[in-house]
Amino acid sequence: MQLKMDAAALQAFLAQDFGQVAADFAVERADAAGVVLRMRVAERHLRPGGTVSGPSIFALADVAMYLAILSRIGPVALTVTTNCAIDFLRKPAAGQDLRGEARVLKLGRSLAVGDVLVFSDGMADPVARASLTYSIPPSARAGS
Amino acid sequence: MQLKMDAAALQAFLAQDFGQVAADFAVERADAAGVVLRMRVAERHLRPGGTVSGPSIFALADVAMYLAILSRIGPVALTVTTNCAIDFLRKPAAGQDLRGEARVLKLGRSLAVGDVLVFSDGMADPVARASLTYSIPPSARAGS
Amino acid sequence: MQLKMDAAALQAFLAQDFGQVAADFAVERADAAGVVLRMRVAERHLRPGGTVSGPSIFALADVAMYLAILSRIGPVALTVTTNCAIDFLRKPAAGQDLRGEARVLKLGRSLAVGDVLVFSDGMADPVARASLTYSIPPSARAGS
Amino acid sequence: MQLKMDAAALQAFLAQDFGQVAADFAVERADAAGVVLRMRVAERHLRPGGTVSGPSIFALADVAMYLAILSRIGPVALTVTTNCAIDFLRKPAAGQDLRGEARVLKLGRSLAVGDVLVFSDGMADPVARASLTYSIPPSARAGS
Repeated sequence: MQLKMDAAALQAFLAQDFGQVAADFAVERADAAGVVLRMRVAERHLRPGGTVSGPSIFALADVAMYLAILSRIGPVALTVTTNCAIDFLRKPAAGQDLRGEARVLKLGRSLAVGDVLVFSDGMADPVARASLTYSIPPSARAGS
Repeated sequence: MQLKMDAAALQAFLAQDFGQVAADFAVERADAAGVVLRMRVAERHLRPGGTVSGPSIFALADVAMYLAILSRIGPVALTVTTNCAIDFLRKPAAGQDLRGEARVLKLGRSLAVGDVLVFSDGMADPVARASLTYSIPPSARAGS
Repeated sequence: MQLKMDAAALQAFLAQDFGQVAADFAVERADAAGVVLRMRVAERHLRPGGTVSGPSIFALADVAMYLAILSRIGPVALTVTTNCAIDFLRKPAAGQDLRGEARVLKLGRSLAVGDVLVFSDGMADPVARASLTYSIPPSARAGS
Repeated sequence: MQLKMDAAALQAFLAQDFGQVAADFAVERADAAGVVLRMRVAERHLRPGGTVSGPSIFALADVAMYLAILSRIGPVALTVTTNCAIDFLRKPAAGQDLRGEARVLKLGRSLAVGDVLVFSDGMADPVARASLTYSIPPSARAGS
């Protein structure tokens, strides 16, 4: 499989199109197996007590999966999340970064589906898992 | 059904325990039917193009359901989200607040389940729906 | 809203295209609010102990939602379930029929989304809730 | 990790407690990585056109995950499915068996969570994925 965007291209895409949140994320790997995305956990991602908030974990899963899809179809505008099912499994370690490992399970003409495991640095077991569906606009897939 | 916390008590709880995000939310109603929660949409909730981000919609659904459960069991610490399934249905109207309408479908000894419809001011159809499960710590339910 | 298929038309569709399982289901209502579908619970739907099996409850939710969509778009072949999130809330009453109440939340060009509450005869609270997504083939929606 | 039930013990458990459906399933493997369960596809599992029905795929995912949990906690009665999110990815091959590969992601005191990939014999890509949550009765986990 030939990727249309590698880790550097995905990082550049984030910086250009998601200026607000791009600094939170670092693309660690992008290959045939999927994308590994690091979230630099900061004060604004925390809930009282120091744990990472649910919306922040959701954001990591969503961005990781989105980039895994773009790595295969290229920087297609208007690809949007239509569905997510997420399980919160364990409390992340305090003050540690999170890592989302996304894999694509289906890349159809109009729908893409994949899942993500979220890990907290220093913990062996995942802190969350998510499955997500994206709608891909018709024109975008014409040449693929 | 006698609520343990009304709209004012829920709002005060948010202000005290969720200082960081409390200002985003206003409890509009809390009664036997559930909780209606308004999210004051600000710049930080937006994606490029002006639409409200997925994580922000997720946050609204999560907080609305959480408050609907607390309205019935009181301010129980350690009640945590274990699962969420969310469908993004339509793009919210630009520059408009969102409103989450949460109802409790099950309030068990250790699990609570409910769902939320999310509306964008000025649109008749929902922009998202979510169902969520919360784990309630054993001690908290002893007297209920 | 003008329905393309009413309760009788949906029941006839079931009998013709789903011969194997059609006898399990009775369309009680089909209108602008959605579809109410009864499942006649028989021995083959039960788990040891007499409770209705999870796959049977899933089947009821899936067929109810499918018919709610067809009531609006007509008997479109190749409309398929792409996703379902289901919560099992309570054990159904033994020896009682189930009733699925489906409503359509989004009817788009290529995706339809809705949710279903499942009730057991004689119980006030729902025994399950489900949200489902269907993919609608492109041609089917051309004239709508 | 020491399993409490191996493949033979799980198969015997199915035969004893799920007489009605046990013949549909064969436990191919049970180890630290999870459980692989084969579903012998028969006429009653099919939809018109010859494809395996959604409820049948759901049943395979549910039983595979259930057995993966029991392999670790033993034959605990009253362990029940509380939630399932399932994505239907591709049409299974006609007339072929299905294979569910289940892994446990969390085994807590009262909740267990895992996910399942479903494959159709002869196809490389999965036909479905599911994540499931089970509630484990308090007494059952006392000694573990």
